[in-house]
Amino acid sequence: MKILALDSSGLVASVAIVEEDNLIAEYDIQYKKTHSQTLLPMLDEIKKMTDLDMSTLDAVALAAGPGSFTGLRIGSATAKGLGLALNIPLIEIPTLEGLAYNLYGAKGYICPIMDARRGQVYTGVYEFVRNEDLAKEGCRLEVVESQCAVPIEEIIEKLNYLENEVIFLGDGVPVFREKIGAAMKIPYHFAPAHMNRQRAASIAALGVNYYKAGKYVSAKAHAPVYLRMSQAERERKEKENQ
Amino acid sequence: MKILALDSSGLVASVAIVEEDNLIAEYDIQYKKTHSQTLLPMLDEIKKMTDLDMSTLDAVALAAGPGSFTGLRIGSATAKGLGLALNIPLIEIPTLEGLAYNLYGAKGYICPIMDARRGQVYTGVYEFVRNEDLAKEGCRLEVVESQCAVPIEEIIEKLNYLENEVIFLGDGVPVFREKIGAAMKIPYHFAPAHMNRQRAASIAALGVNYYKAGKYVSAKAHAPVYLRMSQAERERKEKENQ
Repeated sequence: MKILALDSSGLVASVAIVEEDNLIAEYDIQYKKTHSQTLLPMLDEIKKMTDLDMSTLDAVALAAGPGSFTGLRIGSATAKGLGLALNIPLIEIPTLEGLAYNLYGAKGYICPIMDARRGQVYTGVYEFVRNEDLAKEGCRLEVVESQCAVPIEEIIEKLNYLENEVIFLGDGVPVFREKIGAAMKIPYHFAPAHMNRQRAASIAALGVNYYKAGKYVSAKAHAPVYLRMSQAERERKEKENQ
Repeated sequence: MKILALDSSGLVASVAIVEEDNLIAEYDIQYKKTHSQTLLPMLDEIKKMTDLDMSTLDAVALAAGPGSFTGLRIGSATAKGLGLALNIPLIEIPTLEGLAYNLYGAKGYICPIMDARRGQVYTGVYEFVRNEDLAKEGCRLEVVESQCAVPIEEIIEKLNYLENEVIFLGDGVPVFREKIGAAMKIPYHFAPAHMNRQRAASIAALGVNYYKAGKYVSAKAHAPVYLRMSQAERERKEKENQ
């Protein structure tokens, strides 16, 4: 099974190709260019470098939200276009789950945080649990708290209540590092550079599991998950309410 | 601090740029092309994509061996050229340590295995240990067994003796999966696709720690670590002994 994955939900633009247990290619850029300038040229680059025949792809996996509204739309539009053209399904990976999967096998809870602006973070709490047949099936990612948009204080309170060591990651870390330091009452640390941001390789690897479990949708049916209203929608609603 | 990293020690060609806690770019290819066809074009690609001014680099980190002899030479020659031209030091990361660092924060022992041919593997045993000031310093990678070239049976025997859960990774896994399954007496599993091969991002992230600890060499002084004699050297020696 061969899966192409995209992640443009945050600051990183990332594309990857996974075939079963093998990462054939991954390309990540975290730079001030917009995803509309980077994502497709990056895909084209790895396609050429690996002589990829697009017709051999079984599915397109993507970070399906939450995240940057524009970023999600670029990712979804690209994935939809590919899915429709190649007649293959899309695998919608919750963005925060994809981030947590960077830390496969880690001890304790995984808490990805993305800066959602307006005093909130996109976050969730995850844990790697050993499957009974560890050698064959490895660990599975369990959702302790589903992805949500909340103030940073709220997720810290939950983590303090859960009383288990935590690894934080995501672009919310530099923004909320001080608040975390002041409020966390249990041991915690921060993921290092090679695993602290979105990776399409994680989306692809998790995508393989989703696909095998029958968890995919048609390209037509796919829509990103925003979790909140966009600024334009919010402002219109506020006007209407006045 | 900004570090450029290269890994061409195995099947993967990989380049990455890390600035402090941020992975600016990573590009990995695991495909049948040779590293001499891929490594420099890949570096050129991420350089252009991130408008990298090479004079802002502080060091070049590389997977310094063991590994494929030709691959190591391509990596070392490239790193030496860059180090000499830019007048910056090289950071020599032991290949197996770099591989283990893919699994930062993982529970249990990490055992990377690379197929070294002639009945041997390049391997080692590593563990992530929590630093006392976890929030500030995170985990450090402790070397339980230094990297070495041994028959697969020898490392399995050691792991059985150590009696701690193990995660295997590396290009040796598909080659020795059955032997591992038959001989391992303690719980083990295999790292998934997004973390089971060489990543220059891991070399770069570990490189930051090495650099801060003053562990680097001049480009002139660097030489790769082969751990064994090359085929040509071995055959000459055999002839001389006859």
